[in-house]
Amino acid sequence: MAKLVFIRHGQSEWNLSNQFTGWVDVDLSEEGVKQAKNAGKLLKAEGIEFDQAYTSVLTRAIKTLHYALEECGQLWIPETKTWRLNERHYGALQGLNKAETAEKYGDEQVHIWRRSYDTLPPLLKETDEGSAAKDRRYSHLDPRAVPGGENLKVTLERVIPFWEDQIAPDLIDGKNVIIAAHGNSLRALTKYIEDISDDDIMNLEMATGQPVVYDLDEHLNVKSKNKLG
Amino acid sequence: MAKLVFIRHGQSEWNLSNQFTGWVDVDLSEEGVKQAKNAGKLLKAEGIEFDQAYTSVLTRAIKTLHYALEECGQLWIPETKTWRLNERHYGALQGLNKAETAEKYGDEQVHIWRRSYDTLPPLLKETDEGSAAKDRRYSHLDPRAVPGGENLKVTLERVIPFWEDQIAPDLIDGKNVIIAAHGNSLRALTKYIEDISDDDIMNLEMATGQPVVYDLDEHLNVKSKNKLG
Repeated sequence: MAKLVFIRHGQSEWNLSNQFTGWVDVDLSEEGVKQAKNAGKLLKAEGIEFDQAYTSVLTRAIKTLHYALEECGQLWIPETKTWRLNERHYGALQGLNKAETAEKYGDEQVHIWRRSYDTLPPLLKETDEGSAAKDRRYSHLDPRAVPGGENLKVTLERVIPFWEDQIAPDLIDGKNVIIAAHGNSLRALTKYIEDISDDDIMNLEMATGQPVVYDLDEHLNVKSKNKLG
Repeated sequence: MAKLVFIRHGQSEWNLSNQFTGWVDVDLSEEGVKQAKNAGKLLKAEGIEFDQAYTSVLTRAIKTLHYALEECGQLWIPETKTWRLNERHYGALQGLNKAETAEKYGDEQVHIWRRSYDTLPPLLKETDEGSAAKDRRYSHLDPRAVPGGENLKVTLERVIPFWEDQIAPDLIDGKNVIIAAHGNSLRALTKYIEDISDDDIMNLEMATGQPVVYDLDEHLNVKSKNKLG
C-alpha cells in the first residue's frame, strides 16, 4: 500500500483578480501562502512520511509544495519538477479577465472554453507575446510539443506519460508520493486514477490548498480517498 | 565554459546563538532569510541562467537555495538534494554553546576541534540522542556510513564522490550549476577545485549568503573567481 497526496496550489494573485492564468507564472497570494502552510499542518497531523515529491515548473505550485513540506518537516525529500504537471495552457485567453471575457464573447462561449473536455481555447502562436516557446524552461522541448492552448483532453495526454513513467513506478514500489500541481493537471490525474468519464470530470472541483489523500494497492487501485481539513 | 556558484546558507538561528550546529536541522534566522534573498538579487543582476541546483538535506541550505532562486526567477530549475553536501558533522559538540565549550575544554582544544584539518570532535554514538542514525533522511545509508562526527578531511571524502559523479559531469557538459550548502562542505569543494593545502583551507572563510562565482573551462580549471556583493 502506498499513499498518494494531491495538493492544488494555494490561491494565486490571478485567482484573486479573476484572470485566466494557465502557464503564466503568477505567484501565490498571501491567502495562498496561508493555505499551503495549512496543508502542511494537516499532513503533519496525518503523520504521512513522504518518499518523493513532484510538482510543475510553475512557481505557485513549487512554492505550495515547499511551504507544505516545510510545515511537516519534510522539505528534505527528493523533488522533481516537470512541465507535464503544469496547469492547462489557456491559449490566447491567458491574462484576460474572466468577467470581461464573458461580456465580450458571451457566457455560453466562456462556459464551453472552461468546461468542455475537448474544445480548445483560441490558440497563442509561437511568435505571439507570452508564447511558452520563448520561455527557457520549455527550451528542451521540440517546438511542436510546446502548446499554444489546451483543453483537458490534451492536458491529460501530456500528464499521463509522466504518471506512467515516474509516479506510478514509485507507488508500485510502495513509496509515498506528494504532488503539488494545478486544478487541471490534477483533474487529469484524478480522471485517470478513478476512471471518471469525460463529462463527469469537468464537474470535479478541487479546493486550493486542500490535500487529497489516496491509499492505493500494488495495482494502483484506489482503496480509500480522503480530503483533509 | 560553465559557471559554478557556491552559496553558504544565510545566518541560522544557531549561528546567532553561537551553538555548534553540524547536522542539526536548524532554521534560518530572519537575517539569514534576508541574506538568501539578497544573494538571489545579486545573481539576477549577474544574469546567470542556471541549469541545475544542488543542495544538502538540511533545511537552512534548502531554504537559502529556494529564496535565492525565486529572487532570480529560476525556482523552476531541477534541484537535487544530497546528504553528501551536508555541513561537517560536529559529533557530541552539536548543540553546545561555543563560548561555554571553550570555558569547559579550553580555547586551545576548541580551536583544534574547529580548525584542525584532521582532528575529530568527540563522537556521537549510534544510540545517543541526536544521532543521525535515527533520522529518516539517512535511513538509506549503511549504519557504518552515518557519521558520529567529522573533521574537514572526512567531510571532503564524502563530498567529493558526489562532485565526481554528479556535479563535475554537469559542468563538463557546459551546464551552469548553483550549490547552496554549508561552510565546511563548501570548504571541501573549494579545497578540491582550487587545490588548496590542508593547512591553508582551514583559514578560508565563506561569508553567509554571499555567492561565489567560478568560470570553469572544460577541464574544470578555474578561469576566474568572483565574490558577489
